[in-house]
Amino acid sequence: MALSARNRLAGTVRSLETEGLMAEVVVETDDGQEVTAIITSGSADRLGLEEGAEVNAVVKATEVMVENR
Amino acid sequence: MALSARNRLAGTVRSLETEGLMAEVVVETDDGQEVTAIITSGSADRLGLEEGAEVNAVVKATEVMVENR
Amino acid sequence: MALSARNRLAGTVRSLETEGLMAEVVVETDDGQEVTAIITSGSADRLGLEEGAEVNAVVKATEVMVENR
Amino acid sequence: MALSARNRLAGTVRSLETEGLMAEVVVETDDGQEVTAIITSGSADRLGLEEGAEVNAVVKATEVMVENR
Amino acid sequence: MALSARNRLAGTVRSLETEGLMAEVVVETDDGQEVTAIITSGSADRLGLEEGAEVNAVVKATEVMVENR
Amino acid sequence: MALSARNRLAGTVRSLETEGLMAEVVVETDDGQEVTAIITSGSADRLGLEEGAEVNAVVKATEVMVENR
Repeated sequence: MALSARNRLAGTVRSLETEGLMAEVVVETDDGQEVTAIITSGSADRLGLEEGAEVNAVVKATEVMVENR
Repeated sequence: MALSARNRLAGTVRSLETEGLMAEVVVETDDGQEVTAIITSGSADRLGLEEGAEVNAVVKATEVMVENR
Repeated sequence: MALSARNRLAGTVRSLETEGLMAEVVVETDDGQEVTAIITSGSADRLGLEEGAEVNAVVKATEVMVENR
Repeated sequence: MALSARNRLAGTVRSLETEGLMAEVVVETDDGQEVTAIITSGSADRLGLEEGAEVNAVVKATEVMVENR
Repeated sequence: MALSARNRLAGTVRSLETEGLMAEVVVETDDGQEVTAIITSGSADRLGLEEGAEVNAVVKATEVMVENR
Repeated sequence: MALSARNRLAGTVRSLETEGLMAEVVVETDDGQEVTAIITSGSADRLGLEEGAEVNAVVKATEVMVENR
């Protein structure tokens, strides 16, 4: 993989909602955890996202926080 | 949960490396995917993070990108 | 506090505006400074945010810039 | 102000620690709350930051989360 | 420049679209590359942005990723 | 391109400095503007970054601010 972003979670698009400039994409990972992404509607169109699509949720490591359980 | 950040992935700390001001925390989710977080050393200390600790990796939805597979 | 994010400013919700997928929350800190947050409408609903609610504005340290006055 | 970032908290630099590429700047706002910023050492040098300096902590609204108290 | 954010790309506003709380600003840099910013509508108004305006696109270094070509 | 991040600036690595967990990469775009990225040392290694390498600087649109000139 050619991109520096460290985190890449494989999953399937469970829902895609577009309103105005923004789109909310819910990705279900293979073990059933959900990851929600807010991207631009323009990017959602460009990627051809739709329910059932196989995607990765990608996150730069500096954006991840840690929380004790 | 009282925090607006939408994404919370349950896992276990697999490694913790601290150098200077920053710490790199690798969290393995329950299905074996890895999430790497860069946080401050001060926060790693305050949370008492160590290998084997049960934590959540937390990410604001606006920080998540989507990538076609 | 169990979350690695370092910054937590106590205040009161002064306004909450929801349009489509996003919500804009203005928090007034105890000394009268304003902090504006853009979160998802879904999170605003989940937290039950409304004017007058006592909240913290939370920011990861890597997201903060510094500016000379 | 000419920058789109909405949040600008006036304060004083209480501590500045530089290690390698990164610097940790603790800003105390006028009502005594602390805001910690992680910036590059290069930027800390360029701004001439030092304890006692009067600065603003600046944050883009999309980076702010909200938490119930 | 008084702000710690390292990256400042000079360009011209090529399009500005506002919908609800958010605005999408496309900046064309002097060599013809495009940079898209999502900011609040409130900030777009406050800055008086419009097509043809001369602006800088500003990005904190921790938000930049690198990708091999 | 398969990634939702909208901004992708083509350039050449002008300097790469690694200290501890973090790396600072300065990319010079084709028209001579500089973009600095802070990524993990691990990612810099994985990408095989070095001076002269042809790369893209990649930024999510929600991370870009706009400033009047």
